[in-house]
Amino acid sequence: MKKMYLHNQARNAARRTIFEGKSFGSSSGKGAVRIVPLGGSGNVTKNMYVYEYRYDGKIRDILIVDCGIGFPDAEMFGVDLIIPDVRYLMDKKDKIRALVFTHGHDDHIGGLPYIYPKLGKVPMYGPTLAAAFANLKLKETPIRDRVRPMRFDSVVEAGAFRVSFIRLTHSIPDTSHLVIETPVGIFYHGSDFKFDPTPLDDKPSEIGKINAVGKRGVLCMLSDSLGSERPGFTPSEQIIGETIEKELRLSHGKVLFTTQSSNISRIQLAIELAQKHGRKIAFLGRSIDKNVEESVKLRYMKFPRDVIINDRDLKRMPANKQFLVVAGAQGQPSSNLSRIANDAHKMIKLNDTDTVIISADPIPGRENDVNKLIDQIYRHGARVSYSDIMEDLHVSGHGSSGDMMLLLSAVGPKYVWPIGGTYKHLMQYRRLAEDLGYNKRSVIIPEDGEVMEFTEHAPPRVVDRVTLEHIMIDGLGIGDVGNVVLRDRQTIALEGIVVVVVPIEEATGRMTSAPEIITRGFVYVKGSQQLLARAADVVSHALTLKKGRIIDWQYVRKRIEESLKEYLLKETGRSPLIVPVILEV
Amino acid sequence: MKKMYLHNQARNAARRTIFEGKSFGSSSGKGAVRIVPLGGSGNVTKNMYVYEYRYDGKIRDILIVDCGIGFPDAEMFGVDLIIPDVRYLMDKKDKIRALVFTHGHDDHIGGLPYIYPKLGKVPMYGPTLAAAFANLKLKETPIRDRVRPMRFDSVVEAGAFRVSFIRLTHSIPDTSHLVIETPVGIFYHGSDFKFDPTPLDDKPSEIGKINAVGKRGVLCMLSDSLGSERPGFTPSEQIIGETIEKELRLSHGKVLFTTQSSNISRIQLAIELAQKHGRKIAFLGRSIDKNVEESVKLRYMKFPRDVIINDRDLKRMPANKQFLVVAGAQGQPSSNLSRIANDAHKMIKLNDTDTVIISADPIPGRENDVNKLIDQIYRHGARVSYSDIMEDLHVSGHGSSGDMMLLLSAVGPKYVWPIGGTYKHLMQYRRLAEDLGYNKRSVIIPEDGEVMEFTEHAPPRVVDRVTLEHIMIDGLGIGDVGNVVLRDRQTIALEGIVVVVVPIEEATGRMTSAPEIITRGFVYVKGSQQLLARAADVVSHALTLKKGRIIDWQYVRKRIEESLKEYLLKETGRSPLIVPVILEV
Repeated sequence: MKKMYLHNQARNAARRTIFEGKSFGSSSGKGAVRIVPLGGSGNVTKNMYVYEYRYDGKIRDILIVDCGIGFPDAEMFGVDLIIPDVRYLMDKKDKIRALVFTHGHDDHIGGLPYIYPKLGKVPMYGPTLAAAFANLKLKETPIRDRVRPMRFDSVVEAGAFRVSFIRLTHSIPDTSHLVIETPVGIFYHGSDFKFDPTPLDDKPSEIGKINAVGKRGVLCMLSDSLGSERPGFTPSEQIIGETIEKELRLSHGKVLFTTQSSNISRIQLAIELAQKHGRKIAFLGRSIDKNVEESVKLRYMKFPRDVIINDRDLKRMPANKQFLVVAGAQGQPSSNLSRIANDAHKMIKLNDTDTVIISADPIPGRENDVNKLIDQIYRHGARVSYSDIMEDLHVSGHGSSGDMMLLLSAVGPKYVWPIGGTYKHLMQYRRLAEDLGYNKRSVIIPEDGEVMEFTEHAPPRVVDRVTLEHIMIDGLGIGDVGNVVLRDRQTIALEGIVVVVVPIEEATGRMTSAPEIITRGFVYVKGSQQLLARAADVVSHALTLKKGRIIDWQYVRKRIEESLKEYLLKETGRSPLIVPVILEV
Repeated sequence: MKKMYLHNQARNAARRTIFEGKSFGSSSGKGAVRIVPLGGSGNVTKNMYVYEYRYDGKIRDILIVDCGIGFPDAEMFGVDLIIPDVRYLMDKKDKIRALVFTHGHDDHIGGLPYIYPKLGKVPMYGPTLAAAFANLKLKETPIRDRVRPMRFDSVVEAGAFRVSFIRLTHSIPDTSHLVIETPVGIFYHGSDFKFDPTPLDDKPSEIGKINAVGKRGVLCMLSDSLGSERPGFTPSEQIIGETIEKELRLSHGKVLFTTQSSNISRIQLAIELAQKHGRKIAFLGRSIDKNVEESVKLRYMKFPRDVIINDRDLKRMPANKQFLVVAGAQGQPSSNLSRIANDAHKMIKLNDTDTVIISADPIPGRENDVNKLIDQIYRHGARVSYSDIMEDLHVSGHGSSGDMMLLLSAVGPKYVWPIGGTYKHLMQYRRLAEDLGYNKRSVIIPEDGEVMEFTEHAPPRVVDRVTLEHIMIDGLGIGDVGNVVLRDRQTIALEGIVVVVVPIEEATGRMTSAPEIITRGFVYVKGSQQLLARAADVVSHALTLKKGRIIDWQYVRKRIEESLKEYLLKETGRSPLIVPVILEV
């Protein structure tokens, strides 16, 4: 049995990294690495990957990469957010050696407050800013453990796994790819990235390190695939500055600027330009406030304190001196920007001299909300700058096909596994890989829950399927909105609900009066009195067919449901949710 | 008072059209034309425009252009489709002289079966294919009137209005712009179009007629604006053929082809190419069947009958000889293509040798559904060709900014009114018009319900606002799902419903037993028994505070609602719809 190393920071600092060419040591024909995607394979968010080292069929060590939140589909009515389903890990908690984060976006760190308590005390690591943003979330909970910030030249030892960091550019500083050495081979965990030659924070991707690991031979690379449909390379963040400046020159009123609240480099850039044009800056949105504060503390952002003004000063400031950094770039209904656009913000009103700069692309599934937001802003007569009309605002944080092919060429893995895209992005990534000479079988496309096993000599294959549910967060509840509740919500949303209260005398088992029918979301009640009266008759009739005492409640419920369902479908073409209530009186 | 002409086809044929330069005759300083957009201004579908000629403040004549259906927003739960709200016309029916259609798309003709009965017997006109498709819809109803097919050189006289047709290219043959002469000036009704120099039906846009009317002087042009965000010109339909051929050459299995079911030229093209590659064709989808049948009858489509096969023959055909024209290009959940993609089609199963060609762009608001459809198809291993990755399938039926600027230059109206786009498209159209030298005030942007008045000498202005509701069609009901029903559906969809049944003894006005609490879509009931028991206590407690007989039911309902709402919000963070039911026993 291999000796397990738990993390030891002092030792790590001294340890040579893989880029110095040290080989990992002996491997064994009986060893295997399994990767279990709990989120992020076949979809964009909710990223969480479980790496398992097995020997002789037994799990020795588990490494977890990322722990993000997801956003609900349009059909997940009322659900605020989704977290990965970690039931698979519940009987393996003692094998978890580390949780490593790639970067500080919510779809990679946001699940931590909900999931960490379920995992037990796991050592957590991440690049400095990712660790800081994750810890901001932990501080709001009773959890006292923290994510340890890691330099890009440090290493995490986690049992049989050795994890090193490579800096990549993305839309948040300190984004990392992970090199995961195992007894079976090297894995390259290449989540969200682009190759920005001139990033705003002056810290370009460490391409030398990528080439070095490529030369050593990588068994499998997991690669961001979201931008695989776009030709060429994603442009540098720098050009966004020119667009913002142009808007600042044109604007005679307030300028509102929105981007992801974690994109602090872009916020820093906007602040610098606003300042240059003589404007004062206000932040509207709790997430922006918190992220900026933390980033200033860690010196990831820098600006004179007096360019920032508070709410009271903002009111006294002429419109053409205001620059508002506003949360809500994805058109989230409760965000500051949505409230401003819909005249529901307590402080900010839009008018036709104002300009709104939306410096973010809609994530898949949110296009409709973002387009509605743009329309609402336009209705105030304000100028809107957004990616469909301003090519240079259209700077994705994700690479395009060129970036992806460059990474794939540099790493040159035996197998490649596109992640972080919807299925069409994965398939398009496969076409790109085929253009680079990969055959179809070398591009593996498992989806969440499909357990891939890698051994030294056989090709990887799906060895198991883990059943995953959407763990939905609605209000204060975690997971109590399950499939049953959701299915009811969906039925009612589409067809309405009909509640039938049947009062039954306890002693005799007979109806004491006519059934009461209450509907919501079904028909306009005032215009449908006749329909509802007849529906009550249908129920009465169905129940009197059953002579004498009513004792079999199950049967009664079913009869009510069936008779009413048939009647209402015939009359209205709708199938509402029918809820029979037998009330013993 | 002007003499009213009702349509007379024989007379029309003889009548000279405006392109011969005949002036319309005397106008009057007291005359005015009002345009009331009932649908299509500030949105893309549900097109319906009311033109009113007024003299001395009194309505003399009404001309209606188009009568389309709209598609529900994501929040309009359960609504199948929307039709324009025509209550405005109800006290003016005797003034309606004609209803003229521009082309045969559902968002221009589809409202007819629902709305025609409300208008009275109005003469209806449309280009040949538009009339044919509209009449297909009327044939399914008891309505016996029909739309009269018009040649492009004919004229409709409708009271003070004289309407001529100009052929334009679009994604359906026989698309027309209307020249509407009035005593106040000439209006150019330029709905959906693009300039396709090589259309599939060999009938290009009549640019000469456009220039001619421009020379006479147009007061106001209404113009399609949907493609205003795209640079350059929309490519010709011809290039789609090359893409289809390429897919046919690559495919070893079935080929499925989908486009709008009214785009019969594109369907004709696909059939010809499929035939050339030795495949047989089957149609899957009732709308395609009907449209193709009608088009063949009218000789808008032509192919040997034996290339079309029925279901039974299809089963015996090897996969690589099958070419299926399938309905459902917008990802509609109940369409044939969606059912095939989701393994719910009785006859067609997808596998990894198949190819699916999606030759249509998602209409605004349907992007998410189309993307999900693509993902589902890919999951079968099939090839998918769609616009984001195949530039040459991306041939919109709507012009791009170049097409729009060309039309605007040729017509050169005094005022221009962008239509058929969401607000952001209208604003972008305004930018284009400004580039052509129009000032901001000449580009008018009313939205649905805003009544624009045009007179000879004063600039147009909004003189009235008509309140419009979404008339929603759900199942068999027209309009009975109104705002109340919809708001209930929305609340329940997001938060669930809680029904509280309180049994009260009729004689004494006292509760006979504890309140019964039934929830749906709220919490997982089995895991929430304690919560629900305590909720019942809260209700009991709230009611016992009111001593003695309960007689004021309104008050009781309110108390139940308030106490329960507060309790549930505190415990769960949710605000379900609370329905108190007082049951007298």
